Amino acid sequence: MIASLDGDDHEITARDERRTPRDGADSVVRAIADSARATARDAGLPLHEILAVGCAAPGPLDHRTGMVHEAPNIVGFKEFALASRLSDALDGLTVFVDRDTAMAAIAESAIGAARGARDFIYVTVSTGLGGSIVSGGRMLRGTTNTAGEIGHFPVAFQLDTTRDAAADLPRCGCGSYGCAESFAAGRNLADAYGVADAAEVFAASARGDARATAIVIRAERALANLAVGLVNMLNPALIVVGGSIADNQPGHVLEPMRRAIADRAFRAPASAVRVVPAALGGDVGMLGAVFAARERLSGRGEWFL
Amino acid sequence: MIASLDGDDHEITARDERRTPRDGADSVVRAIADSARATARDAGLPLHEILAVGCAAPGPLDHRTGMVHEAPNIVGFKEFALASRLSDALDGLTVFVDRDTAMAAIAESAIGAARGARDFIYVTVSTGLGGSIVSGGRMLRGTTNTAGEIGHFPVAFQLDTTRDAAADLPRCGCGSYGCAESFAAGRNLADAYGVADAAEVFAASARGDARATAIVIRAERALANLAVGLVNMLNPALIVVGGSIADNQPGHVLEPMRRAIADRAFRAPASAVRVVPAALGGDVGMLGAVFAARERLSGRGEWFL
Repeated sequence: MIASLDGDDHEITARDERRTPRDGADSVVRAIADSARATARDAGLPLHEILAVGCAAPGPLDHRTGMVHEAPNIVGFKEFALASRLSDALDGLTVFVDRDTAMAAIAESAIGAARGARDFIYVTVSTGLGGSIVSGGRMLRGTTNTAGEIGHFPVAFQLDTTRDAAADLPRCGCGSYGCAESFAAGRNLADAYGVADAAEVFAASARGDARATAIVIRAERALANLAVGLVNMLNPALIVVGGSIADNQPGHVLEPMRRAIADRAFRAPASAVRVVPAALGGDVGMLGAVFAARERLSGRGEWFL
Repeated sequence: MIASLDGDDHEITARDERRTPRDGADSVVRAIADSARATARDAGLPLHEILAVGCAAPGPLDHRTGMVHEAPNIVGFKEFALASRLSDALDGLTVFVDRDTAMAAIAESAIGAARGARDFIYVTVSTGLGGSIVSGGRMLRGTTNTAGEIGHFPVAFQLDTTRDAAADLPRCGCGSYGCAESFAAGRNLADAYGVADAAEVFAASARGDARATAIVIRAERALANLAVGLVNMLNPALIVVGGSIADNQPGHVLEPMRRAIADRAFRAPASAVRVVPAALGGDVGMLGAVFAARERLSGRGEWFL
C-alpha cells in the first residue's frame, strides 16, 4: 500500500493484495516484493524514489533487528531476517519491520480510535488473537522486543486434577494450551467445529446447534478472562478491539468483554476503561506500516520503539 | 521501620510490628501511627525531625493521591484517604502511600534481586497474590494508577459450557472468580482446605492427602498459566518472586513457573527471562517504603511514579 497521511486524514494512493505463499520463506519474500513493486508501478512511483518501506508481520519478532522469531501461521518464518531479506529483494530500500498488531496500534493511535490515549491496549480478534500495549504514552516492548502477545496469555486449565492440565483444552498454534487465542481466534473456532470459516460456527450457534454454541461460549469465557485480566493488570483507558471476528461478531467479542469488566474487574480500573471498536478496519496494519516507516525515518517514532 | 539506605547497603535502625486491627479504618490508622511513634521513640528520633514517611498498603490504590480504593483484607479500607488520614495522625508529617507490591518492587530494584533490570516483574505469593510491573525502566501505572494487580488476572474458567462459568471455581476475595490469587495465595489455599494456615495444606499434600494434593496442583496450574502469560505478554528479563508461600514452598511456586515458561511460552521471551527468588524477605515492603519516601522527597522517584 502507498498512502498519504496528513494529520488526522489518510488517503490510500495504491494497493495490492496477495495470498501468502505456503511453500517457504523465499516465496513469501518474493510475493511481498512483487506486491510492493506492483503498488509502486500503479502509483507511478519509481522504486528508487521511495525513502523507506514499512512491513507488518506476525510475531513474535524484534522490530529493532527486523528478525521474525516464530510465526506459526507462515511457513518458514523461524528466526528469519525479514527486514534485510526484503530490503535485498527491493534493491536495498530501507525496510522497517514490526509486528502487525504493533503497526495496528500505531495506526489507531495516530489516526484511529486511540488518538490522544496514553494508556491503551489494541486487541485484534481475527485469524489469530494478538495485541499491543501502550502504557504511559510508550509502547511496551519488553527486554527483547517481543512483548504484546496477549493472545497467548493462558486463561484456562483443566480443573479436574485427576486429569492432565491440558485435558479437554484445544491445542494452540503456539504449541501451548489454554491461550486466549486457542479458544477465541477465527482459525481456532473454525478448527474446533471442523469448518473452514469461523462465520459458519457463529451461524450454526445462532441456529441453535449445541456443539457450535459450546464453542462460542468457551470463546466468550476466554475473552472475558482476558478482558478482566488486562484491566486489572494494566489499567488502560481504552481497549481498542479490531480484527475480522470482532468486526463481524461484536456481540460475541466486545460485549462479553464489556460485561466481564463491569461484573468482575476491580471497580477503579473498570470505571476508567472503555472497550471500543477499532476505527481503521482491515487496512489498519498497512496504514500503521506506512505511518511507522515515516516516523522511524524522521526520528519521531521513539514512543513506539 | 526506620532504616538507613546507602548505595547497595541497608541497615534497619528500629522497627515495630503490630497486628492489623479488624474493627475499622480508624483503628488501623491509629495502630499504624502508634507503631510509627514507637519506632521513632526507639530510634531516639523526635517526630518533628522526620522529613517524610512511606506507607505500604494493599491495593488497588492511587499512589499519587494516597487514596486506597479497595483492600479486601482490611476492614474499612474502601475509597479511604490513607495518606492524609495518616498524616493527620502523625502531626502533619508528609506521608507517601503506595501499594505494598509497588514498594516491594522499588526495594528489589534499588537494593535487591532486580538491581539493574529495566524490565522485570515483582510477584508476591503470600496471604494474597500481587505484583508490580517495571517496563523499559519505568513502573507501569496505568491511566488511574491501579495497574499491577497481576493476582487478579483470571487464569481459569469452567470448560463445561452446560455449567456456569464460575462452577467449581473458588470465589476470589475481589468478588470475581478464576483469578490466580483465588487458587494460589496463602489464604485461599488454607480456606480451600478448611485450615488456618497454608503450610498445613502443603504438609497434608506431602503426606499423600488427596484433597490437599488437588488444591496444590490447581495452585501450580494457576501459577503456570500466570507465568506463561506474563512472559508472552510482557517479555521481562526477570520475574522476582517473593512472599511467604514462595519463600517456604519454592518447589510449588517458582519451580512450576519455571517449568511452564520453558515448556509453553514462546521461545524468544522464554530464553530471555529468569525466575528468581526475592532478595529482601519479609521486610521488602517496608524497605521499599523507606526508599520510596526518600526518593519522592528528593524528586528522584520519577521512574516509579
